[in-house]
Amino acid sequence: MKNIYGLKGNFVYTQDFGKFKIEENKIIIIENGIIKGIYNELPFHYKDIKVIDYKDKLIIPGFVDLHLHAPQFPNMGLGVDKELIPWLNCYTFPEESKYSDLKYAERVYRLLIKELWNVGTTRCCVFSTIHKDSTKLLFDLFNESGLGAYVGKVNMDRECPDVLIEDTIQSLKETELIAKEYINKYSLVKPIITPRFVPSCSFEMLKGLGEIAEKYDLPVQSHLCENTNEIEFVKTLEPESKNYSDVYYKANLFRENKTIMAHCIWLNENEIELLSKSKVFVAHCPTSNLNLSSGIAPIRKLIEKGINVGLASDISGGHTLSMPEVIVSSAQVSNLKWLYSNKTDEKLSTAELFYLATKGGGKFFGKVGSFEEGYEFDALVIDDMALNINNNLSLEERVQKFLYKGKEKNIIERYVRGNVVKEPKI
Amino acid sequence: MKNIYGLKGNFVYTQDFGKFKIEENKIIIIENGIIKGIYNELPFHYKDIKVIDYKDKLIIPGFVDLHLHAPQFPNMGLGVDKELIPWLNCYTFPEESKYSDLKYAERVYRLLIKELWNVGTTRCCVFSTIHKDSTKLLFDLFNESGLGAYVGKVNMDRECPDVLIEDTIQSLKETELIAKEYINKYSLVKPIITPRFVPSCSFEMLKGLGEIAEKYDLPVQSHLCENTNEIEFVKTLEPESKNYSDVYYKANLFRENKTIMAHCIWLNENEIELLSKSKVFVAHCPTSNLNLSSGIAPIRKLIEKGINVGLASDISGGHTLSMPEVIVSSAQVSNLKWLYSNKTDEKLSTAELFYLATKGGGKFFGKVGSFEEGYEFDALVIDDMALNINNNLSLEERVQKFLYKGKEKNIIERYVRGNVVKEPKI
Repeated sequence: MKNIYGLKGNFVYTQDFGKFKIEENKIIIIENGIIKGIYNELPFHYKDIKVIDYKDKLIIPGFVDLHLHAPQFPNMGLGVDKELIPWLNCYTFPEESKYSDLKYAERVYRLLIKELWNVGTTRCCVFSTIHKDSTKLLFDLFNESGLGAYVGKVNMDRECPDVLIEDTIQSLKETELIAKEYINKYSLVKPIITPRFVPSCSFEMLKGLGEIAEKYDLPVQSHLCENTNEIEFVKTLEPESKNYSDVYYKANLFRENKTIMAHCIWLNENEIELLSKSKVFVAHCPTSNLNLSSGIAPIRKLIEKGINVGLASDISGGHTLSMPEVIVSSAQVSNLKWLYSNKTDEKLSTAELFYLATKGGGKFFGKVGSFEEGYEFDALVIDDMALNINNNLSLEERVQKFLYKGKEKNIIERYVRGNVVKEPKI
Repeated sequence: MKNIYGLKGNFVYTQDFGKFKIEENKIIIIENGIIKGIYNELPFHYKDIKVIDYKDKLIIPGFVDLHLHAPQFPNMGLGVDKELIPWLNCYTFPEESKYSDLKYAERVYRLLIKELWNVGTTRCCVFSTIHKDSTKLLFDLFNESGLGAYVGKVNMDRECPDVLIEDTIQSLKETELIAKEYINKYSLVKPIITPRFVPSCSFEMLKGLGEIAEKYDLPVQSHLCENTNEIEFVKTLEPESKNYSDVYYKANLFRENKTIMAHCIWLNENEIELLSKSKVFVAHCPTSNLNLSSGIAPIRKLIEKGINVGLASDISGGHTLSMPEVIVSSAQVSNLKWLYSNKTDEKLSTAELFYLATKGGGKFFGKVGSFEEGYEFDALVIDDMALNINNNLSLEERVQKFLYKGKEKNIIERYVRGNVVKEPKI
């Protein structure tokens, strides 16, 4: 049976990189969660469908967060004065060791999902921990919420505290079990292969994960070239590999259009070529990269090389789940990159960053993050009246104002694949 | 008549730069707005005073914002993809021209003051516009609110749109009239001499303002070395001066411990010496400096040279009035400065930045920004229970968490000079 309805309002989205598409006072038609088109007036053959009139409100695509760590939710804003490796040891690993406790995990994961809902993130790619049962719980809780997610059980079999170290074979076995159980269980929540990063994974582990990814045609997520000390460490651990990227590549973890690498700050030219050729997605995590003194990723350059880029909160290296805040942070670091490159490395505009936070990351989920025909309807309805002291802002300025000054309360409705997502219970 | 009372709770402040002072479950005694001391138990001779018990809540000094533009409040988050000069021409000047309209000014200024209250700023240094009457209104509204402020009528007599250009003599006359009227009118709201910056002020104007400042012993605020194009422009406008700082210096606008210069990103060594020698305060505005691609100020170096530094929102170059957000931004740019200086330029810690946002800027107001004996009691009472998923955070970690993750609603009471400040009416 067809479920068809319309929404009326001001639609702003980015079909093309860097260009806002403004559809003022239009009607969008949704059929079984998929966009049929945007019209000036309700077409005659739709005359009997229900149309919700959002009047002067803004309607934008839901935000996509390409990289975050669910168990680090309680640590947001803590220890943000350390670098990657000491921060992992002092804050992250001790917190992650708690997720063998299902009750604790449920409490945190419910709070996390509520906050994702709150900030308007409709799809995300999530690391859990090494723990099978709490990872499964995370799949179930995401499904219960109505938000879309790839969820990955983390694998790690070296260079980490005893309480988090896994037996390689056992870890691979559990990963495959989860893959089989969840690959077709839910329509919006899917498994993703998730080696923590090269320092925490033996090559045997990486290779095993590459095989599981291949066997079940699963996507992959991990970290790459976040911190210069990390890169040096990888060199000592994997001296046979040409570079950090090459380790994942050799393990068949660079799957075409199916792999996300977070950070990618310090890639060399060969690695950029490899990522481009392998059609790897890059998750740009500017808040995290600033907090952990990691650096500024060369996003303009990666995009020019044809690499798909999305934005990511990377909690709790990042201290906020808000994608608007990540957009602001991305703009700011791109401003600095421009300034300190003698103004050669062109800044990322608000429209470009909006694209990355919606359609750019959304591509990883298929036709997600835009209001073009055939796209899944993920959207936020925004009441920005209280934000605007001047009433003569253009729709584009209203979007910019919302990104910089909007609060969660300005988002009055969230849609994922055509369904309203209500506030999750905690 | 003495007004004496006590408050009980967990006090966190920074007596010394970079070191949190933690007074857990203590009692502070306030007499006529001034701190008498912090005690483990109520001293016998105070046994009859009223003590408000805030139990496990945090009590920290109120935030001090050393530089902001009141009329730019409606522009926050707009046009933040331009550099200083084009941004002034496209967004700032058109907005500032509206403040000849007292009704419009009142609407905006009430919203601004409410938002300052909201984010926990208890003292600030504010630019209005060139308009005498709406500037006077701003004094009155600040006084009505109970917050502390220096308010300055802006002077500008060159290089700006016709609608904002002033006659030099007339501008000086109005400035002096305001100074005389407000110098003793209110106890928490005082006048400050406010040349916009060298590009907008002839040397005659600057000199005249220096004389008024001297005559009435008034403080001074302006901008300095924000943007490299601005500095080049100053060179062409004031070719006789050794550098940008020298222009203010020669006009007697570097008043010992009484002048604030905002930004100070691109000072040369001579200028740093001059600012240090002249005991000029620097207002560090990292959010603005990021948004307008201005650069990263050498804050560690300025502090090492003995210069007093405070933090500032600089709306609407900055897009937020929240000093916690400015602290986060300051930490982030200092991380980058460290990283890109080959790790020689030491990062600013959370405790150091907390100091700058309280006692550092507070010094400009006298004994403000700390809980030491003799200080004016400006404070925020913070209920952070909802922020902490783990209950075993230290008080220092709770403060860090509040700075990174706190919301306005976590601030449940504001004190300025010993008085509770209630939510301003709009």
